[in-house]
Amino acid sequence: MGRVTVRRPVLRIGPDGQQRRRPDALAAEEPLEIRVDGSPLSVTMRTPGHDVELAHGFLLTEGVIGSPQDLLAARYCDSVDDQGRNTYNVLDVALAPGVEPPDTSLERNFYTTSSCGVCGKASLDAVKLKSRFPPAADPVRVDYRTIVTLPDALREAQKVFSSTGGLHAAGLFTADGELLVAREDVGRHNAVDKVLGRALLDGRIPATGTVLMVSGRASFELVQKAVMAGVPMMTAVSAPSSLAVELALETGMTLVGFLRGETCNVYAGDERIVL
Amino acid sequence: MGRVTVRRPVLRIGPDGQQRRRPDALAAEEPLEIRVDGSPLSVTMRTPGHDVELAHGFLLTEGVIGSPQDLLAARYCDSVDDQGRNTYNVLDVALAPGVEPPDTSLERNFYTTSSCGVCGKASLDAVKLKSRFPPAADPVRVDYRTIVTLPDALREAQKVFSSTGGLHAAGLFTADGELLVAREDVGRHNAVDKVLGRALLDGRIPATGTVLMVSGRASFELVQKAVMAGVPMMTAVSAPSSLAVELALETGMTLVGFLRGETCNVYAGDERIVL
Repeated sequence: MGRVTVRRPVLRIGPDGQQRRRPDALAAEEPLEIRVDGSPLSVTMRTPGHDVELAHGFLLTEGVIGSPQDLLAARYCDSVDDQGRNTYNVLDVALAPGVEPPDTSLERNFYTTSSCGVCGKASLDAVKLKSRFPPAADPVRVDYRTIVTLPDALREAQKVFSSTGGLHAAGLFTADGELLVAREDVGRHNAVDKVLGRALLDGRIPATGTVLMVSGRASFELVQKAVMAGVPMMTAVSAPSSLAVELALETGMTLVGFLRGETCNVYAGDERIVL
Repeated sequence: MGRVTVRRPVLRIGPDGQQRRRPDALAAEEPLEIRVDGSPLSVTMRTPGHDVELAHGFLLTEGVIGSPQDLLAARYCDSVDDQGRNTYNVLDVALAPGVEPPDTSLERNFYTTSSCGVCGKASLDAVKLKSRFPPAADPVRVDYRTIVTLPDALREAQKVFSSTGGLHAAGLFTADGELLVAREDVGRHNAVDKVLGRALLDGRIPATGTVLMVSGRASFELVQKAVMAGVPMMTAVSAPSSLAVELALETGMTLVGFLRGETCNVYAGDERIVL
């Protein structure tokens, strides 16, 4: 718990081969197994901490749950390491009656469909999820002058946590640029899951009227997570992928990339940006 | 095929809200389904191209194959899109007789073990693989002055491919700093798989005497891929995670991070670096 960073000895080599041994703070990375009603669902490599939020966000963005009430409880299993200490690396969640558990036998990563004639289609279908909260109808508009403040606001929140240089960050903001929640993780999908899980627990899902800012690139996977949570606008420091842009256009989400200094690129939904 | 970048219209907003619409090159991202002897094994979001190498590298770093001869053939399935064009997004590989297919029912991401008393252990075990080519015994040593040339050499190779700002890169170098192969992808694990798959096809696995350079961070997953291919040294532009360092120490791999300009941090195996 709270193992966001780990100190390790490091040999620092400078110009002309100068050497210095010193301890260095590394971003902690450990596997988290998420179980649903006792059945293993997934193992993700994550930075420990905010695991309950991570599980909520993961199940939300996988389409399993849509409200905090869909999850009755989340508890760490009695998993122990070599020294008999609890690793806090296995989390079991209990779904509310009537909430359909994820079909692990037909999982998106390792599903067992076939019919080769439509298999390309099947592949894309397999990775695309249907959102309960499609963002298309969200009428929110965000001032451009607010958007350009988000990277600094997120970086400011990051400083609070760590400075290992090894963590991805995600932050959920109001349309006025107020930070609601920020999280860091070695996995960028985990950072987003933790933010959206917190929003779910706070009763803020669907996340209408918000902006999700990520510290790196905007991949298909991250845009899909935002869409699953009803986020109408996503902004990224770096580039989006082609499929990320396609999904944003398809679902009516606003997607902003290369948000640096006073400039940015708008790839989808520019009608939400007030200039 | 060859869809490494995709052009999309973008609204560029500059300081003071100046607007300009222009086409922008995005890193292409599409799902690739890998099948083994007709059975779906995994779906990865990747940049199209070098898919046969990707499949080889993925199967190598998952421990399924260890030589090019373990794979008899790789061919695209007849997967078609809405317009009836082959998507080239489903690749079926045939394993040689005697090569054990991966056990998809007991996959590491969605495996079905239980016994909660050891489940933390089970989780970490589930993500750790045993290498056929442990790098510990590799006597190679690399000059520090060679190591500091690798980032520029990799960037130079990247320029050849694209400049979308949205691609991760990986390159395999000789101990003298000669680039053997470089690949780019929206997924950093895919870039590494493509590089190692190429090396496998070229008869260079185990990759003794080489250095694997990655453009971003060094995660557990990437270090493990290198270890599975017998790579004795990995260098990264950014930070390693705690578990990446642990795995490098455990397997005798040299791990260098924050390789920028004339400086770097050595987290494991500094005996291989000539100062």
